Amino acid sequence: MKIVRYRINAKVSYGILDGEIIKPIEGELYEDFSIGKETLYLKDVELVSPCVPSKIIGIGLNYYDAAKKNGLDIPKEPIVFLKAPSSVIGPNEKIIQPEMSQEICYEVELAIVVGKRCKDVKEETALDYVLGYTIANDVTAKDVMARTKPWALAKSFDTFTPLGPVIETELNPMNVNLRLCVNGVLKQDGNTKDIIFGVPKLISYLSKVMTLEPGDVILTGTPYGGGLLSKGDVLKMEIEGIGSMINYVD
Amino acid sequence: MKIVRYRINAKVSYGILDGEIIKPIEGELYEDFSIGKETLYLKDVELVSPCVPSKIIGIGLNYYDAAKKNGLDIPKEPIVFLKAPSSVIGPNEKIIQPEMSQEICYEVELAIVVGKRCKDVKEETALDYVLGYTIANDVTAKDVMARTKPWALAKSFDTFTPLGPVIETELNPMNVNLRLCVNGVLKQDGNTKDIIFGVPKLISYLSKVMTLEPGDVILTGTPYGGGLLSKGDVLKMEIEGIGSMINYVD
Repeated sequence: MKIVRYRINAKVSYGILDGEIIKPIEGELYEDFSIGKETLYLKDVELVSPCVPSKIIGIGLNYYDAAKKNGLDIPKEPIVFLKAPSSVIGPNEKIIQPEMSQEICYEVELAIVVGKRCKDVKEETALDYVLGYTIANDVTAKDVMARTKPWALAKSFDTFTPLGPVIETELNPMNVNLRLCVNGVLKQDGNTKDIIFGVPKLISYLSKVMTLEPGDVILTGTPYGGGLLSKGDVLKMEIEGIGSMINYVD
Repeated sequence: MKIVRYRINAKVSYGILDGEIIKPIEGELYEDFSIGKETLYLKDVELVSPCVPSKIIGIGLNYYDAAKKNGLDIPKEPIVFLKAPSSVIGPNEKIIQPEMSQEICYEVELAIVVGKRCKDVKEETALDYVLGYTIANDVTAKDVMARTKPWALAKSFDTFTPLGPVIETELNPMNVNLRLCVNGVLKQDGNTKDIIFGVPKLISYLSKVMTLEPGDVILTGTPYGGGLLSKGDVLKMEIEGIGSMINYVD
């Protein structure tokens, strides 16, 4: 099932996407809902970020290949950072290069969307708390990151967390291809098989620290190949089974 | 004016505290409100955190005295980190020492509560976007911080951000005493005159990165003397003009 959030006539709603058709959700997405009878066409709505996270948790250096090619040690435990929720944008929106940075970088990532409030979850039951998966770009101002010690600032500029276009609820997160193209040129091409700390481990580990809330997002790290963006660039990110998302750089 | 958030009969509301009396707010705190006629007594309600931040932004090493006594260089720009909103607790609540850490530390801080959505604010007008100020404890797991590079994890354990008891709207943030006692023994005793990056500077700087939202919290750093906590400790934090807050360690 593909969950979307969309805007039509200034009103934002959740729906289920089936091909080119959206059926609105009746009830509460994270509690109990049914699928309405009304039919909308994808072309008539504006898709927005498919969830509204109370927190965005990022994981650094979580692909073996990226660690190896960058000459870095494999982390012994997850490298955890936070991004401000105000950094979220949706599909087709613009990533704005801030005045404070001359080096903004893309990183395609599989994003976990939490479905149920949870704390101290075991790995064995971790997937029970997942609503589904979406595509994320963990945009980062590398020059700001280099001169400011904690990572939060460099990763929290407005527009630095594109999410979308859908939340796929049926995905096997441990074996999907993910790719990113800039202006049609393939820049990142990985598979989540190469992830160091997998989805159950991350949920279990993080939930020992923080209560995870419905709609919260965990970014699972990026494969090798993250790189610089320039104004005017067109970014296309694809994850097998989820779909693709385009964003522009301005 | 002292704004409180309180629970009575399982319902949470905002009110104005005057001595021992609370008058409920009618309307929206961050938009337009009036003070209701009903009268409640402080003793009959449970105070909870006075705001519900969409993000908690912390500033590291922001007191000259703390930098000097710890032998650290004065930062050239603010050291910015984020704490998960799920870490917030209110007055009289327990700070829970997590299994993952044997070294949790206290840090009393003046917290700015944002009153209006803002972006790219100038220092000259920054105070227009402040609702008021409250007391915060930026609890940190120092051992976790030492072995994990970004600070987010060490600062985001559930219960690690006590906030309260009130938001004081009339405070001059540039000259107030702040103190913290553990089990009745004075441990921190500073004044915000000693702050490196002041309130207008922080709001301006941060708003160039992130849209600040009503209820968002900016922790302005801690004076010299932050230290370790043990189970059973009773913490009392005081800020001149705001009041005092007690929390327990469990």
